[in-house]
Amino acid sequence: MTDHPFDRATLDALLFNWLEIGTLADLPAHQGQTPEDWRAVLDLADRISREAFAPAWRASDQVEPQLVDGKVVVEPGTRKAVRAWLDAGLHLAGVPEDEGGMSLPFTVVAGTMAMSMAAHIAASSFPMLSVANTRVIRTFGTPAQIAAFAQPQQEGEALGTMCLSEPAVGSSLGDTTTRALPDGEDDLGPRYRLRGTKMWISSGGQDITPMTVHLVLAKVEQPDGSLIPGSGGLSLFAVPSVLPDGEPNDVAVAGLNHKMGWRGTPNCVMAFGENEGARGWRIGAEGQGLPIMFQMMNEARIGVGIGAAALAWRGYLASRGYASERVQGRPLEDRNHPAPVPLLRHPDVRRMLLAQKAIAEGSLAMCLYAARLVDQEAAGDAEAGRLLGLLTPIVKSWPSEMGLVANHYAIQIHGGYGYTRDFEVEQIYRDNRLNPIHEGTTGIQGIDLLGRKVIFDKTGGIELLMQRIRETEARAEDILPECAAALRTARAAVEQAVDTVRGQNDPAAALANATQFLSATGHLVAGWLLTDLATRPGPLNDGHKVAARYFAGFELPHVQAWLAPVMAQSDLTATLEEDWV
Amino acid sequence: MTDHPFDRATLDALLFNWLEIGTLADLPAHQGQTPEDWRAVLDLADRISREAFAPAWRASDQVEPQLVDGKVVVEPGTRKAVRAWLDAGLHLAGVPEDEGGMSLPFTVVAGTMAMSMAAHIAASSFPMLSVANTRVIRTFGTPAQIAAFAQPQQEGEALGTMCLSEPAVGSSLGDTTTRALPDGEDDLGPRYRLRGTKMWISSGGQDITPMTVHLVLAKVEQPDGSLIPGSGGLSLFAVPSVLPDGEPNDVAVAGLNHKMGWRGTPNCVMAFGENEGARGWRIGAEGQGLPIMFQMMNEARIGVGIGAAALAWRGYLASRGYASERVQGRPLEDRNHPAPVPLLRHPDVRRMLLAQKAIAEGSLAMCLYAARLVDQEAAGDAEAGRLLGLLTPIVKSWPSEMGLVANHYAIQIHGGYGYTRDFEVEQIYRDNRLNPIHEGTTGIQGIDLLGRKVIFDKTGGIELLMQRIRETEARAEDILPECAAALRTARAAVEQAVDTVRGQNDPAAALANATQFLSATGHLVAGWLLTDLATRPGPLNDGHKVAARYFAGFELPHVQAWLAPVMAQSDLTATLEEDWV
Repeated sequence: MTDHPFDRATLDALLFNWLEIGTLADLPAHQGQTPEDWRAVLDLADRISREAFAPAWRASDQVEPQLVDGKVVVEPGTRKAVRAWLDAGLHLAGVPEDEGGMSLPFTVVAGTMAMSMAAHIAASSFPMLSVANTRVIRTFGTPAQIAAFAQPQQEGEALGTMCLSEPAVGSSLGDTTTRALPDGEDDLGPRYRLRGTKMWISSGGQDITPMTVHLVLAKVEQPDGSLIPGSGGLSLFAVPSVLPDGEPNDVAVAGLNHKMGWRGTPNCVMAFGENEGARGWRIGAEGQGLPIMFQMMNEARIGVGIGAAALAWRGYLASRGYASERVQGRPLEDRNHPAPVPLLRHPDVRRMLLAQKAIAEGSLAMCLYAARLVDQEAAGDAEAGRLLGLLTPIVKSWPSEMGLVANHYAIQIHGGYGYTRDFEVEQIYRDNRLNPIHEGTTGIQGIDLLGRKVIFDKTGGIELLMQRIRETEARAEDILPECAAALRTARAAVEQAVDTVRGQNDPAAALANATQFLSATGHLVAGWLLTDLATRPGPLNDGHKVAARYFAGFELPHVQAWLAPVMAQSDLTATLEEDWV
Repeated sequence: MTDHPFDRATLDALLFNWLEIGTLADLPAHQGQTPEDWRAVLDLADRISREAFAPAWRASDQVEPQLVDGKVVVEPGTRKAVRAWLDAGLHLAGVPEDEGGMSLPFTVVAGTMAMSMAAHIAASSFPMLSVANTRVIRTFGTPAQIAAFAQPQQEGEALGTMCLSEPAVGSSLGDTTTRALPDGEDDLGPRYRLRGTKMWISSGGQDITPMTVHLVLAKVEQPDGSLIPGSGGLSLFAVPSVLPDGEPNDVAVAGLNHKMGWRGTPNCVMAFGENEGARGWRIGAEGQGLPIMFQMMNEARIGVGIGAAALAWRGYLASRGYASERVQGRPLEDRNHPAPVPLLRHPDVRRMLLAQKAIAEGSLAMCLYAARLVDQEAAGDAEAGRLLGLLTPIVKSWPSEMGLVANHYAIQIHGGYGYTRDFEVEQIYRDNRLNPIHEGTTGIQGIDLLGRKVIFDKTGGIELLMQRIRETEARAEDILPECAAALRTARAAVEQAVDTVRGQNDPAAALANATQFLSATGHLVAGWLLTDLATRPGPLNDGHKVAARYFAGFELPHVQAWLAPVMAQSDLTATLEEDWV
């Protein structure tokens, strides 16, 4: 068990050296702040991650949340860790100062998240969800709603959830069946009684704070008892577990899901309105449920990417440590070497470490780059917004999918030991397996990227990305010619694929191969950022260079392979007879 | 939970239609047998797999083996399943008739294994290890040793183990520290007292049969107390848990490993000779330990491939069933479709099903093809032996690595449900994660393939493979031109790579990229066999064709990507400074 679940030096190099986040202090939102302030907050998050989060991570896997007399009991160390985060006010880091927070750039907040997620990803879920929840309420709620539902969370007296999915409704939210019956109006706005079952609700019940504020996607019941079909019928409701008069609301945890990993977060089936109806107040206008949630989506999806990047880092560090210490076998070039050598001497172990380093570094670079775009967009930079929209499905899915590849190698380096629950890589792998699923599966991200962000895009997002990549190619020409060349080939292949799908004039046919396009473009983006990072001088530059060279030589050639069905306009999946498969 | 964990129709099509195993009845070893006999044995294995193995699989994951008063207690359903297999005599299927068995072709035995492994892979380990153990004893032991150590296993009164690894010795067996002190000679041959700790010993302790026969790799203590260094010093010993006089031997289960999956098989730390020394009898000559074990390796490695293929099948069937029943979302080409459609309608779900089908079918085809080569080699076919040697590292590793990819998709199709322990894909994925590790990691297989089987090979094994592939290309030319073309490109790329590494004149440098070569060649072999299968008419031909077309269009293009570092003679891993990674 390493006591350094994250590489702070790399995080600082990415933030301060590569992304030069110091310049964000010039933005109006962060005026008066200095990089030293941000380092202090990162130090605080680092300390709490190590001292409170890391020690509880293992126990949270072994002692799953329990449902006792209708209440969810969280593993005690996890409870303590979340309390420490809230008590330190780290959940307020990104909240505007005039709304009770620190107004820090999201890029810095992302850095704090990376550390806590590496230490204990399940514990990190609680504050992360609550931060997203309060942001929705602050952005779309009335002052009274903010006071009643956001303020308690900011004060650490409540935590928040996002209640979107239902047992039969996952990726297709338009089919939501939870209904909200109008029930008059009061100080908190239009009031409703909600009835329905929500599924996969993280921290739906918990014993860390006295209250939980649920944000529930539901459909207002029409006078004839019907619900408006499709996603246009969705509205958003704040449903507190405790009513303003102190009485319990009609909300119950109906069951807990037992997961492969990420077990420290209770994942609940929630029953709303089994009796008199769960009291809820509408946030924003009727029918605006999905657009409101979508506004939060970019940051939530970056959050998933950060978690996956953090777990890739942790597995990398664990297996690097193991490979340095464990001796086994003789060098390939000296089979009669008198004694076994550390695993780190074997080329294939080095390959697996390099792959992990490239994935971890590429993932983190991708997430922090996107986080910086969030800050730039918030300051009015429209170009940053366009690039962010394009990159978000990649930032969500690439670290999630490739993080598992990295963790696979981390186990592989440990041999049989890595398959046992005595070594942390086993749990890291199970924890990370959630990331390609939640906040939109990889398949959904592919359709978002190729459909909304490429085929139907009018903003020139993909052209902007290609331009940025070309700039990096030029800068790498002399320093890392092999990376520049590999990047150029991969970029040209993706550009050709974009032309092909746009020329296809049949979006549904093109979208059939969307995930292939996503995999290819994700690799291109990772190769671009790794190369870009490697062209900047800095204390860790030797390592950045070798990661970029690995990626150029071993990974970027796969871009063209993924694009093969896109270029061939393959209709294999579209024309499949169902009894052939 | 499906009650059909395996697709018997595909198995039969592969065996009887594609591989035409009926012709094996002409071999002297199987004379008098008919394909009907074999179908009856397959039926028996099928029935026991469904009725005894499948029902215990889940419980074996939840109720791990316990160490109680020094005895290992196996989950009761698993115990019953293994007993049913032994009582039916299925462990004798491959044993020669004059040695008490049925003399069935290994290809048929492989078919029985595939079914039991799909149903409960951990239970299958017990008889599988015992079969390997008795084969060693029958091949290399004296008649008295066979009577004492193999006969009880064949009669179902004992089970066997293979004790190779030690806590500090995994892939590098030459560093074994377990020592055997000469202790005279008796009816059972040269007797020794063994002392040492063995690790990762599957079924090292069990309560299914009254005795366990351990086959232990150890080094004979020299008169000066030293051990001969390297693998040349290894000898093999039969160490029964119960001595011929009925007294317990000095062998103890020192602990159980707690694994990610495959939990039904107790995985033990074994202490040999903590007191007076564990009594063992040498099997074969001194110093012949490793060559003897290597003779068993081909079949053990094919066994791993079969298990991985079986789990790929099971995950495929589970997710195909789920995709047919679960409705979610609208078709890409009809976003306003009035009702949600089955997942199976979505192109990306179809892609994930096709990928699983191609992996499951390709893996099983590969394993059964290799099993048939075992039968042909045993009948004196030297060419079959050459091909088998070449293919074995691929048959071990490709299904293991790609089976996990298949299981990843099986979970992905289930969405959040697939991440819970309520759906079988979660356990399938964890069970399967062992396969790239045991019986030689993927990295070890890569070095075996590129080193022993290509660079240092004098038998022309790779040329023979390429010739076979060319024959399939020719046959596919008219029926599946896209598969023939993709196969030709991939085959030419591997041929070029072979020329490159052979021309490199620096084996250690070439071997640094051995795993890349393995991945590429594994894909080529899978593409070859899927195409070959699809060129043969038969009842399942539509499905075989679509799997072959998927593989040609979506997978074979990666062959060249994996070979890129091989062709570039990349020295990245070899020249890496350790503090860069």
